[in-house]
This record gives sequence, structure tokens and C-alpha cells, in this order.
Amino acid sequence: MTSHLSVRGVTVTPIAFPDLPLLNSAGLHEPWALRAVVQVDCGDGLVGLGETYGDAPHLELLTRAAGALTGLGAFDLPGLDRRIATAVGAADTPDRHGLTGASSAGKTLARVVSPFEVALLDIQGQATGRPVYDLLGGKARDTVPYAAYLFYKWAFDDADEYGEAVTPDQIVAQARRMIDRYGFQSIKLKGGVFPPEQEIDAIRALRAAFPDHPLRLDPNCAWSVDTSLKVAAETEGLLEYLEDPTAGRTGMAEVARAAGMPLATNMCVVSFADLPEAVERGSVGIVLADHHYWGGLRASAALAAICRTWGVGLSMHSNSHLGISLAAMTHLAAATPNLTYAADTHTPWQLGTDVVADPLPIVDGSVTVPDGPGLGVRLDPGALARMHEDYLTCGVRERDDTAYRRRFEPGFTKRRPRW
Amino acid sequence: MTSHLSVRGVTVTPIAFPDLPLLNSAGLHEPWALRAVVQVDCGDGLVGLGETYGDAPHLELLTRAAGALTGLGAFDLPGLDRRIATAVGAADTPDRHGLTGASSAGKTLARVVSPFEVALLDIQGQATGRPVYDLLGGKARDTVPYAAYLFYKWAFDDADEYGEAVTPDQIVAQARRMIDRYGFQSIKLKGGVFPPEQEIDAIRALRAAFPDHPLRLDPNCAWSVDTSLKVAAETEGLLEYLEDPTAGRTGMAEVARAAGMPLATNMCVVSFADLPEAVERGSVGIVLADHHYWGGLRASAALAAICRTWGVGLSMHSNSHLGISLAAMTHLAAATPNLTYAADTHTPWQLGTDVVADPLPIVDGSVTVPDGPGLGVRLDPGALARMHEDYLTCGVRERDDTAYRRRFEPGFTKRRPRW
Repeated sequence: MTSHLSVRGVTVTPIAFPDLPLLNSAGLHEPWALRAVVQVDCGDGLVGLGETYGDAPHLELLTRAAGALTGLGAFDLPGLDRRIATAVGAADTPDRHGLTGASSAGKTLARVVSPFEVALLDIQGQATGRPVYDLLGGKARDTVPYAAYLFYKWAFDDADEYGEAVTPDQIVAQARRMIDRYGFQSIKLKGGVFPPEQEIDAIRALRAAFPDHPLRLDPNCAWSVDTSLKVAAETEGLLEYLEDPTAGRTGMAEVARAAGMPLATNMCVVSFADLPEAVERGSVGIVLADHHYWGGLRASAALAAICRTWGVGLSMHSNSHLGISLAAMTHLAAATPNLTYAADTHTPWQLGTDVVADPLPIVDGSVTVPDGPGLGVRLDPGALARMHEDYLTCGVRERDDTAYRRRFEPGFTKRRPRW
Repeated sequence: MTSHLSVRGVTVTPIAFPDLPLLNSAGLHEPWALRAVVQVDCGDGLVGLGETYGDAPHLELLTRAAGALTGLGAFDLPGLDRRIATAVGAADTPDRHGLTGASSAGKTLARVVSPFEVALLDIQGQATGRPVYDLLGGKARDTVPYAAYLFYKWAFDDADEYGEAVTPDQIVAQARRMIDRYGFQSIKLKGGVFPPEQEIDAIRALRAAFPDHPLRLDPNCAWSVDTSLKVAAETEGLLEYLEDPTAGRTGMAEVARAAGMPLATNMCVVSFADLPEAVERGSVGIVLADHHYWGGLRASAALAAICRTWGVGLSMHSNSHLGISLAAMTHLAAATPNLTYAADTHTPWQLGTDVVADPLPIVDGSVTVPDGPGLGVRLDPGALARMHEDYLTCGVRERDDTAYRRRFEPGFTKRRPRW
């Protein structure tokens, strides 16, 4: 029945959805977050979904890749890699989030392959009547825990339900709101925004308000090695892990040797090429997997096997995303026994906007793994059309947190380390 | 259709098939090779096949595992691991081939899980209409090359088609016979039997007779580091790789530093626990994967991802096996882009005996990857019954090459290093 299942057509749709003025070490989130939705059509009503970044240089490569896939077998993932590698050639574009360091052709290719691989796994699951987790090795857990992802933020708009979050009390209030609504049982604070002492105060306030929630702090490499060591000493016993305190494998290794908690990263180990040196140096205790830039769900599963073998912990990174990615992350986590930390998600910052008709709900901090065929989510065509229209009219084509923040703080620059 | 597919019953059948007096560093092959055939029945005519070692302690654990699988979902591979871990407990049995070093509970468990995992993948493929390679990530190649596997051997029986192979000329004749019949395009000589100079002479004779065939020599750790270095120097330019010249990660690393060819191993890196130290020390250039003791096909695929990441080569090891294992090895190799060396196989030493009705043929040295559902081979019930009868009557219950050789050479001992 499925033996000649192959790609008939691929659609790549850029979309935009409202974002709030969230702060990070690079600057300020623009009012629109960009994503791209990939639909792979294999006929007979079988359409697979993928979701990825929506910035212009990436979109151009997605479009090139999409044009090369007609006739590809739905199970031919090695063929997917080959065709996209040919279509993309030596293209070498930086990621717009500034997370994955120096750009390379390999990193670029992994980012482009990812949404198509997810869409083909969705197709494979639909065609065989199996959930995607079964194609990744089977279900190791029934629910996937996610963490409350707190941001320092400004408030431009009185109608913004989350309001300003600058002081420790405001951060606690943000956590409270998010936990009341979603039941999260772990908390992550995006730091690197204010001087470290102020962020440590926020962590202390969170610990007092939520005595049993594991806490994490992520300054996105805003600190020097010395500052990182001071913060690590002051937060010992407070954090389950400290995420990317400083840049580079050498600096991370130096901090890791002295810190009382493990260091996590989604910036210092971002591709397979980074792993040998990072494990040899002991740069990281926990890798934050992200299928969007590791090359898809199977590549992320391979990363998980490597982490298991080397005794490196595994958690999951997130950028602004919608319900297709949440489903993909959930299936990956379901099939990954050693993903033992609550995963990051930006879901609360979507503010209810989604491109899927049936987003997976977060209840008690977890998503119940969907057992239906494929990813288990369906596109909402009306929402897709509206969000594409928003993309066309919003004016944003490449996310630039630094330039956007400079509009309000003319002297702002992105500096790593800043402290 | 497949959502409630679960295990109804499992059969483990020990079998024996005739073996020839092949020599290795441990001794001499007994006249019967033992295997066990696993049949996992999921109802509706769906029976999955697996093949593994047939020695008594392993059989006992297989039987314990088999009894724990009723009701297990056919896609629930994490559940398979859990159930077998519980059934096997802390059992810690050495492998009868003496290849995988000190025994451990982890190695024991991996060996027990393997045939059941293969059988469940066979079921999954049959139920979804997909070949097993699609469940491992898709087909990266259409044919899988195997190597001619030469052994020094005695001749007890005039009817033995391969005859005596002790001199270089006899080894060349064995290669010629095997290559004429199967078309192999790579050659491996099992060494560690005669003094190194005699085996180097055989390699030189093979090079002269087959100028274009990549050659390998595998003395199964029969040499000291010094001897290994001398052999490596004398065979430089002759061997594509030298396999397990000496025992242990330290010794292998010492030889690897000076040798002109990469070192391969299926003895010094035999489990995931061995990998971190082995790659750190540079002990091996090529790992010979073997799904029978690495824990199955998915575990072997994870090993492949690790080898790709660390720039370690990958080839495939074989013990005496039959057609179920050949099919499993072929699907694994088909889905593994970086398995770039011809794989080992004992197929020629089966002498036409098989437990499958439709063994995959080796033509021009390669097996064409079967594109049908599952493993693509069917059990021959008559052959299984005959081979089980042979098991019952043959008297061999645990392979012991050393004891068997001692019958003919009373002073023989297994010594590593011997030279």
C-alpha cells in the first residue's frame, strides 16, 4: 500500500505571529515572530507538516529545497539529504537567532533539511498508521514535561497580558501566571539582560516563591569566565543547571571545572562537528537538543545516543514556535529515554495563536504524547492564510533583536561578554 | 490496522549446522556450529524472525526473556528493553566466542535483546508494508558488499570441498574458490594461527594473486604490541586495515600511533561503554559493528552515528551465522551511509545449509538489498526442524574452540599474546 508513496508537491509558507517585547542579551524581540510552514504532499490526502524559521535567507533555501523533492520516496531520508544538499549547494547562511556561532555549509544544510524530514516522518506515520515516536524507536514515556520559560520584558501595550517584568517580583509574577495556567514544574529564566546581581536576585525570589521547582538561568553567553564563576558560586544549590554562561568551548570548560552545577548549552555545541572537542574538554554537562538546527528528529535521536554514551545530560532548546514544532519536539522527547529534563518551549508566548487546528495542550506542565498516526496535529488552513497575510504586511523579513532594541536605546550593542 | 499489534507468543529454537575445522587463535571450530532462532508471533500470520548464538547459558537467558514478552506492543522497543532487563536481571555470562572481553551485565543484556529487537523490526516492517531498512532511516545503498572470509583450516574429511589451507598457496586457492563462487571484491584472512611471518607470506601471496582486492588480516589479539608493530611495518601498503592485532585499548592505541594502516576492532570496542576511552586514546580507526552483541539494529545504527561524528570508520563483524542474520546485517548496512567497507560474513562456511527458505544470494560479492516488507526472508520449517534435531543429537552445548583443538594437540592453550 505504501510502497510507491512519493512526494507530489511541496509548499513552503512564510507566516508571522505577534510577539511581545521580550528581552535577551542580543536585544529585544520584534512585534512579529517569523516562521515557515512546510507541507509535503504525497497524494491520497497524505500531507506531512514541518515548521522552521521564517527569515528571508532561510526561506530562499527552503524554496530551493522544496523544488528538488518531487518524486522522492516518502521513506527515502538518505535521498532527502542528497537532494537538499545538491539544491542548497555550498550555501552558508548564519542563523538569525545568533545562537549557533560561526555559520557553515553543514549547519545551513542541517537547518534546511529539518522541516522536510519532520514532514516526511509525519507522512510515514500517517501512511503506516503509526505515531512518529514509533518511527524513532518507540515510546519511552507517556507525557513530556516542559519548563516555564520566563523572560525579562518591557510593556508597550496595556493589553499585554504579561505586563512588565524587570524586577524580581515581576519575574515571580510572570512565573506565577504561567504556572497557574500551564502547571509547569520547572522554571527557566532568560538572563543576560541585566547585571548578574539583579538576575541572581530574581533567581533567589523564584526559589523563595517556588521552593520545589528546579530553576535554570540562561544569559546567552553574556558573561566573562570570571563573572560566570562568580555567578556559579552565588547560585550553587539554587540551579539545576546554568545555561551558556560564557562563549566558547574553552571558556565553558573552565567554568564547568569549578561550577557546582552542570553547564547546559545550545550555543557551544550546536552540531555534530562540535561534539568531539566539547566532550574531550568537558565543556558541557548537558546538551540542549533542537531538531530545527541539528538536522531533524533522527539526527536529534543520534545526538541523544551520543549523550547517553558519553554520560552527557540532554534537554531541549526552543525558539519562538508554533504547534507543529511542539508536536515534533514531543514525539522526539517521547522516543528519547535519556531526555530527563523538562524541555524548553515558547508556547506561552504564542498567546493562543497557532497554525494547527488542534494544538497539543500543556497540562500539569506536560504534553500527553499523541498516539494517533504521524505527528498528530492538523493544519488550520484559515489560520495559515491569515498568518501568511500577516507575514506579507508586517514588514519584518529578518529577525534582528539588536536593531529593534536600538530603536529604543540608541546606544545598545550586542556584546558577549557584556559583564 | 497496526495499532494494537502485540506479541502473542515467542519461540526460541536452538539449532546446529555442520562446521568445518577452521583455525583461529583460540583453537579450532567444532564440527557443529550452534545458533538459536527466535520467532515472535503477533497473530494474523505475522511472525518476526531473529537469529543469535546458541550456546547453553545464552539459550537459558533467551528463554527467560521470551517468557516475558507476551502482550508487548510490536513497536514498543523501549518496553522490550525494560521487560528483558527485568527478566534477565543481573545475569552476567561471558560470550562463548571470547571476543567481547570481560563479561558484564550490560553486555549480556545487549546480546539477549538483539534477536528479539530484530524480530520486532521484522514484524513492524511486515505490518506496515515496509522493508526493515525504512525503519532504520531509509535506504542509503542498493547493494551491500561482503568480504571473502578466509580461514586457515585442517581437512579431516575428503568430502570437505574447501580442503586443507595451511600454506600461502592453499590460502590463495581457498580465496579463489570463494571468489569464483561469490564474486567477493575484498578479502579477509583470519590469522593468529601461525607465526606472523607465515601469515604475512599468505597476505603477500593473496596480493600477488588478487592485485585489486583490498586485504585484511585479523589475528584476534594473538600478538604483543612489538609483534604488532613489526607486522604493521611489513604489511604497510598491503592491508586496507589490520584487525585486532593486540589486546586492550592501551596496546591498540600504541600500535595505532605507529601503524601505516588503520586498526579495526571487534574486540577492544564491543559496547557503548568502551567508546569514550577508545576514541579519546585513538585506539581504533574502524569499529566492526555486530548487531548480535551491540544490542540490535537500532543500537548498531546509533554506533554508526557515533563513528560518523568522531570520524571513526565502520565495518561489520560476523560469527558463524545463517540467513536471518545475513538479512538483518544487510538491512542495517543498507540504512548506514558510513558503512563504507565490505562487511564480514561466514556465509560461504554454511555450505548451503540454511534455516530460511529464500536466503539472500551473494552475487558479485554483494547482496542486493531486499525491498519487500520486513527482513525479506521466510523460515523453512522443515529445515528448522532438521537443524533442531541436529542440535539435540550433536552433543555440543557450548562452543569451545580451545578444548576441541586440544583433542588433536594436547598441549594447545589459548594465549594472547602468543607471539
